[in-house]
Amino acid sequence: MKKVKTGIPGLDEILHGGIPERNVVLLSGGPGTGKTIFSQQFLWNGLQAGEPGIYVALEEHPVQVRQNMEQFGWDVKPFEEKGIFALVDAFTAGVGKSKEYEKYIVQDLTDVREFIDVLRQAISDIGAKRVVVDSVTTLYINKPAMARSTILQLKRVLAGTGCTSIFVSQISVGETGFGGPGVEHGVDGIIRLDLDEIDGELYRSLIVWKMRGTSHSMRRHPFDITSNGIFVHSDKILKNTGVEKLQGGE
Amino acid sequence: MKKVKTGIPGLDEILHGGIPERNVVLLSGGPGTGKTIFSQQFLWNGLQAGEPGIYVALEEHPVQVRQNMEQFGWDVKPFEEKGIFALVDAFTAGVGKSKEYEKYIVQDLTDVREFIDVLRQAISDIGAKRVVVDSVTTLYINKPAMARSTILQLKRVLAGTGCTSIFVSQISVGETGFGGPGVEHGVDGIIRLDLDEIDGELYRSLIVWKMRGTSHSMRRHPFDITSNGIFVHSDKILKNTGVEKLQGGE
Amino acid sequence: MKKVKTGIPGLDEILHGGIPERNVVLLSGGPGTGKTIFSQQFLWNGLQAGEPGIYVALEEHPVQVRQNMEQFGWDVKPFEEKGIFALVDAFTAGVGKSKEYEKYIVQDLTDVREFIDVLRQAISDIGAKRVVVDSVTTLYINKPAMARSTILQLKRVLAGTGCTSIFVSQISVGETGFGGPGVEHGVDGIIRLDLDEIDGELYRSLIVWKMRGTSHSMRRHPFDITSNGIFVHSDKILKNTGVEKLQGGE
Amino acid sequence: MKKVKTGIPGLDEILHGGIPERNVVLLSGGPGTGKTIFSQQFLWNGLQAGEPGIYVALEEHPVQVRQNMEQFGWDVKPFEEKGIFALVDAFTAGVGKSKEYEKYIVQDLTDVREFIDVLRQAISDIGAKRVVVDSVTTLYINKPAMARSTILQLKRVLAGTGCTSIFVSQISVGETGFGGPGVEHGVDGIIRLDLDEIDGELYRSLIVWKMRGTSHSMRRHPFDITSNGIFVHSDKILKNTGVEKLQGGE
Amino acid sequence: MKKVKTGIPGLDEILHGGIPERNVVLLSGGPGTGKTIFSQQFLWNGLQAGEPGIYVALEEHPVQVRQNMEQFGWDVKPFEEKGIFALVDAFTAGVGKSKEYEKYIVQDLTDVREFIDVLRQAISDIGAKRVVVDSVTTLYINKPAMARSTILQLKRVLAGTGCTSIFVSQISVGETGFGGPGVEHGVDGIIRLDLDEIDGELYRSLIVWKMRGTSHSMRRHPFDITSNGIFVHSDKILKNTGVEKLQGGE
Amino acid sequence: MKKVKTGIPGLDEILHGGIPERNVVLLSGGPGTGKTIFSQQFLWNGLQAGEPGIYVALEEHPVQVRQNMEQFGWDVKPFEEKGIFALVDAFTAGVGKSKEYEKYIVQDLTDVREFIDVLRQAISDIGAKRVVVDSVTTLYINKPAMARSTILQLKRVLAGTGCTSIFVSQISVGETGFGGPGVEHGVDGIIRLDLDEIDGELYRSLIVWKMRGTSHSMRRHPFDITSNGIFVHSDKILKNTGVEKLQGGE
Repeated sequence: MKKVKTGIPGLDEILHGGIPERNVVLLSGGPGTGKTIFSQQFLWNGLQAGEPGIYVALEEHPVQVRQNMEQFGWDVKPFEEKGIFALVDAFTAGVGKSKEYEKYIVQDLTDVREFIDVLRQAISDIGAKRVVVDSVTTLYINKPAMARSTILQLKRVLAGTGCTSIFVSQISVGETGFGGPGVEHGVDGIIRLDLDEIDGELYRSLIVWKMRGTSHSMRRHPFDITSNGIFVHSDKILKNTGVEKLQGGE
Repeated sequence: MKKVKTGIPGLDEILHGGIPERNVVLLSGGPGTGKTIFSQQFLWNGLQAGEPGIYVALEEHPVQVRQNMEQFGWDVKPFEEKGIFALVDAFTAGVGKSKEYEKYIVQDLTDVREFIDVLRQAISDIGAKRVVVDSVTTLYINKPAMARSTILQLKRVLAGTGCTSIFVSQISVGETGFGGPGVEHGVDGIIRLDLDEIDGELYRSLIVWKMRGTSHSMRRHPFDITSNGIFVHSDKILKNTGVEKLQGGE
Repeated sequence: MKKVKTGIPGLDEILHGGIPERNVVLLSGGPGTGKTIFSQQFLWNGLQAGEPGIYVALEEHPVQVRQNMEQFGWDVKPFEEKGIFALVDAFTAGVGKSKEYEKYIVQDLTDVREFIDVLRQAISDIGAKRVVVDSVTTLYINKPAMARSTILQLKRVLAGTGCTSIFVSQISVGETGFGGPGVEHGVDGIIRLDLDEIDGELYRSLIVWKMRGTSHSMRRHPFDITSNGIFVHSDKILKNTGVEKLQGGE
Repeated sequence: MKKVKTGIPGLDEILHGGIPERNVVLLSGGPGTGKTIFSQQFLWNGLQAGEPGIYVALEEHPVQVRQNMEQFGWDVKPFEEKGIFALVDAFTAGVGKSKEYEKYIVQDLTDVREFIDVLRQAISDIGAKRVVVDSVTTLYINKPAMARSTILQLKRVLAGTGCTSIFVSQISVGETGFGGPGVEHGVDGIIRLDLDEIDGELYRSLIVWKMRGTSHSMRRHPFDITSNGIFVHSDKILKNTGVEKLQGGE
Repeated sequence: MKKVKTGIPGLDEILHGGIPERNVVLLSGGPGTGKTIFSQQFLWNGLQAGEPGIYVALEEHPVQVRQNMEQFGWDVKPFEEKGIFALVDAFTAGVGKSKEYEKYIVQDLTDVREFIDVLRQAISDIGAKRVVVDSVTTLYINKPAMARSTILQLKRVLAGTGCTSIFVSQISVGETGFGGPGVEHGVDGIIRLDLDEIDGELYRSLIVWKMRGTSHSMRRHPFDITSNGIFVHSDKILKNTGVEKLQGGE
Repeated sequence: MKKVKTGIPGLDEILHGGIPERNVVLLSGGPGTGKTIFSQQFLWNGLQAGEPGIYVALEEHPVQVRQNMEQFGWDVKPFEEKGIFALVDAFTAGVGKSKEYEKYIVQDLTDVREFIDVLRQAISDIGAKRVVVDSVTTLYINKPAMARSTILQLKRVLAGTGCTSIFVSQISVGETGFGGPGVEHGVDGIIRLDLDEIDGELYRSLIVWKMRGTSHSMRRHPFDITSNGIFVHSDKILKNTGVEKLQGGE
C-alpha cells in the first residue's frame, strides 16, 4: 500500500511512513491546538513534492488563509496560478469582493450537495492528490444528527477521486472523543492534537488513534509550533507528569 | 452444547472452546479498536473450516470491504463464487454500480423488515452458519428508542436459522456500557474491545462480559493487530498499570 | 413472620433464613450478572419444596427459557404438566407457533391490565406461591414516567394473592441505583447483583440493600455461576481490592 | 421555645432536646434507609406521651401500614379507636374495601386541595400534635416544578394548626441533596438518613442538616434498625473509614 | 468610597471595612447555611446605626419572619412603628389576614413590575439605606431564562435609590456557582455561605468571591451561628482538613 | 507582524511583545475574575499611547462604567470630549436619560445588525484602534445556537476596520472551556482569567491559551488586582499547590 508523506518533521516516523493513500483522516483538537497549521503544512509539503492540493476554508476568509500560510513561509499564490493549488471559499458565501477573486465559492452551506459539487470540480480541475476540509464541524454544528451522514457522503466522493484527505474536527476543551457522534467511526484514520495544562504549564501533544492500512506509534508524542510549522518529537513521549525521552527510539 | 471456534489466536482459549452455537454476540468497541477486523477474521476462519458465512456491510462500500479483507490475506471472492460466502450491501442503497455487481442489496435502511428479508434470503441461499452485522449501531443511530426492539427482531430471525452471529456495536471513546440502552440485555454474549491510553501509551485489550452456555475467562486480555489479524494474549492480563504475565495459565 | 427459602446456596444464610413471605423483591443487575439464573433457581427450588411457581418471560422465547433452565438441570416440563409450574409468554405476543403451545399469552404489552389479568389467572390456576417477572424493565422501558405506578399495580395484585415475588430489573453498566426512578421505593426488598472489573479481573457479587421483615447481612458477598446455578459465598466479602475471608462467620 | 421529644433513642440528644414545636422537618433518604420506621416511631412515641398523631399513607396500603407498625410492637388500633391516632389513606383512592374501613380517604392525588382538606379534617378531629406525610415525593413525582409550591402549601396549613411534622422525602441512591429543587429551602429542618457501602460493608447513619430554633449535633451519627425500631448512636461518628467512638460525648 | 458596616462580628474585617455603598451583593448558599440569619442581622445592625432598612419576604410568612428575628433578640416591631423598618410581604399574596396587617403586599409574583413598584414605594416611604430580598431565587425558580434580566432590573432600581442591598440566592447542596446562569455576573459582590461535611463533621464557612470597590480577604473563613446570630472567625481559615488558625492575622 | 502593547504590567512579556494587530481576543473568565478591569485597562493604556478606543457596554450603565474606570484613575471623559474615546451604550436601550447624554446607543439587542451598525459608526467616527465588547455573552445568552455566527459576524467587521479587539466572555464557576460552543474556535486569541480556591485560599491567575501570530508563555501566571488595575507576575507560575517563582525568567 502506497503511503503519502506528510512531510511534517517527526510525523511520518510515527505513521511508519506516512498516511496510506486515499485514507480520510480526522484531525481532532480543541482551540489553539494547531489543527489548521497541521493541515496547511500537509498541503504545502504536498506542493513541494509535486502533489496538487486543495484547502477548503470554512472558518476563515480566503484572504486571511493565504496570509496566515505566508507567515510560515508557505506562499501558495504561485501554486494557485500554476493551477496545482486551489482554495475553496466556503466562508464568504460569495458576499463582498470574494466573488471577483475566488474561483471556487460555495454559496449555501446548508446544501451539502452544492458543497460537494464545488469540491468535486476543484479536484477535477487541478488533479488534486491532497484535500483538507477545515473544518467539517462547521458543516453540522447546528444539526448534529447529520454529522455522520455528512462525513460518509464526503468520504464517498473523496475515496472515488483517489485523494488523501484531512478532515479538521473542532472539539471543546476537556471533551473526550473526536467530535460528533458517529463521525469517529466513519473515517479511516484519527489523529488527535491536544493542549493540556499540567500543573501550571501547557503541553502540546498528538496521538494517532487509528490509521487503516498501516501500523503506527501507539504513544502520545509532544510537538512544538515553530515559525516553520509543526515539529513532532517522535523520540519523546508525554506522560502524566511531563515529557520523557524514549529509550532506544519509538 | 456445541461450540463454534472463532479461530482467532488466543480467543477460543478465553472462551473455553469457542462461542456456543446459535449465540448472538455483541462486539462493542470504540473507534480504532479492531471490531471490523475481529468480525471478518471470525468469518474467514469459518470459511477455512467449511462453514458458510455472511457479512452485512452497513459502514463501508462492498468493494472496500473486500479490499480491506484482502490486505489481511482473506480473499473472499473465490468463496463468493462457490456460493459459501455472501456480502449483503446495506451501504450503497443500490446507487451507482453496486446494483450491477452486488447480489444482496438493502435499498432502504429505515425499513427493518426489508433488511431482515434480504438477510434471510442470503442465509437461506448459502446455508450460512456464521453471520456478522457491521454495525447494528447504524440501524438505530438516529432512533435510540428502537435499539432494543431492532436487536430483538434480528436475534429472533438469526436464532431461528441456527446461525452463530456477531453484532458489531459502535461506542464512543470513554463511554461505559456496550452501546444503546437495552441492547446489552438482549444478546447472548458480550465481548468488549478497548483501546486505552495509560500514561502516554495506547493499549489494546478485550474482555468477555457475558457468554450464555459456557464459562469463560474473567480477565481483561491484551491483544495485537498484526498483518494476519488479531492475536489475543490469553496468557496475559491488562492491569491499570500495564500488561502482566499470568502465573500458571489463564 | 414466615420465610421462603430461596434454596440458593449461601443466600438464605445472608437473608437470615430466607425472603419473608409475600415480599416483592427487586433483583437489579447489569448485563451478564446472572439475574435470570438467580430467579429461575429460586423457582426451581420452590418446585422441589412443593411450592408452585410462575415465570413471566418478557425477554426470551418460552421455548428458549425452558432450554436454558434445562442446561442447569432444571427441567420444568414435568412440573408444567402436573400443573404446578406455569410459564407466562409475554414475549411472542402470540405470533408464530407459540399460540398453539403456550397456555398463558400476553398479547399486548402496552396494556398493563391485560398483563395483570393473564398473570392473575395463572396464579389462580396453579395456586402459585412464587412468581418471577423477568424483567419488569421491559414493561416501562419506553415510558419511564410509568415505572413507579406499574410496579405499584403489580405489587398490589401479588400481595393480594399471597405470593412471594422477584421482579428482575435491568440496569446499565456503571449505573447506580436499582433501575427506574421510584421503583426502588415501591418494593419490599432489593438485592443487587454486580459484575465489576477490578484491575483487569471480573468479580461477581451481591448485596442485600433492603428486606422488609427481616434483618440480613450488611455485606457484599462474592458469588459464582456454576453448572448447577448460583453459589453465594456467605463467608466471604468483596472489598475494593478483591475477595476476603470473613473472620468468624457472616 | 418548646421542644417535641422524638423518643427515638439517641436522637433527642443529637437535637439538643428534640424538634422545636411546629417545625416541619424533611426526612430524606434513599431506599432501605429506614425513613418509614423513623417516622412511625416518632408518632408512636408521641402516643405514649399523650400526643395525638396522624400518619398520611401515600406509599402503602393502610392495612399493611398497621401490620408493619405492629411488627415493631407499635399497635395503633387501640389509639385509633380512642380517637387519638388517625391514618389518612392516600394510597387506595377508596378503591376496594378501604372505603368501608378507612375514615380518612384522599380520592384524587392530583388535587392537592382535596388532600389538604382531608388532612385538615383529621387534624381537627383528633387534635393532632404530630403529623407524618409518607412520602411527600409521591405528591410531585411526575411534576417536579410543583414540588416547592406543594411543600409550601402543606407547611402553611400545618404551621397554622400547631403540629410538629415530618415530611418523608425519597431520594435515589447516590443522589446528593434532599429531594426536589426548592423543597429543601422550604422546610424548617432537614434530617438525612443514609445507607452507604464502605469497602464491602453497609453502614447506616443520619445527619441533622438544619433545624430552625435549636442548635444540634454537627456530626454524622451511625444508627441501627432493631426489632424495637431505630437506635441512634449519639456517642459515635461515622467517618469515611467506618465508625469511631467520640471522645468525651457528643 | 463610603463603606456600609455589616456589624456582623468578623465580617467587616474580612471586607476591609464593610460593603461599599450602593453595591448589590449576592448572598449564595445551600439549605441550612444561614443566609436568612445573615441578611436579617445586616438589617438589624443597620437599624442600630440609624439606617432604615427593608426586608422583602418571599419564603416565609411576615408573622413568622418577625418571630424568627425576635429569637435572636432582633425585635423589629418598634422600628416598624417608627417608620424606619419595613417588611414587604411577597409571600401571602394578600390572602388571609395579612392584608389587614401588612402595609406592603405584592399580589402577583409573576409580574416583576408590580414587585418593583411596591419595593420602590417602601424604599421611598422610609428612606431605606439597606434592602434585603430573601430570596431572589423565588422570582425565577420556574423560569431560569429570566434570572439574569430580573436581577438586572432589580439592580437598576436599587442602584438608583442609593441603597446597599443583599440578594439571597438559594443553591442546592453540592451545586457549584452561585445560583442561576448570568445572575453571578450581574451583581457587584458575591458572598458564599457553605455547610460542608468533612469526614463525618459539618463545618460552616464563608468566602467573599468578589466585591466591587474594595479589596477583601481572599480566604475561606469558618463561622458559627449563635443565639446572637452569626459570628465569623476572621482569624481562622477552613482548609480541606478542617479549621486552622491564621499566623499573624488575616 | 506589528504588536499592540496592552500596557498591563507583566502581560506584554507573557505575550512576547503584545497582541498581534487586528487580532480578536476572547477574554474568558468567571464572576469576579477581573475581566472588565482587564479590558478597560487595555483601552486606557491605548489612550495614553495615542490609540483611540471604544468600550461597548452591555452589562453596566454607561454612567457606572465611567465611575468604575475613574476609581482606578482612568478618567475617560476628557478623551470622550476630544473624540478619541467612545462608549457604546448597549445597556439602557435608550430608556431614561441616557438618550440625552449618550451618543452611541443600541436600541434593540435582538437585532445584531443594528448593534454592528452602531459599532461601525463609532469606529469610523473616532478612528478606533482598540475595541472592547463587554460582554459578547449577553448577545447570545438566550440563544446559544447563535453564539458562533454572532462572533464570526463581529469578527468580520472588526477585522475589516483594522482594530485590535477584546471580546469579554462570561463563564460559570467550574465551567471548563471559554464560553459557548464554537465561540472558542472563531477567534484569533484566547486569554483565560481564573479565580480558584486552593485549600481555603483564593488565587487569581491567567493563561494564554492561543494567540495567532506570536509565540507566548505556555504557563499559568498569578496576577493581582490593585488600585491601579491588574498586575501580572510574569516571573511566577501558579501550580496546583500555590504560587512558585520561576527559575531564570519566563
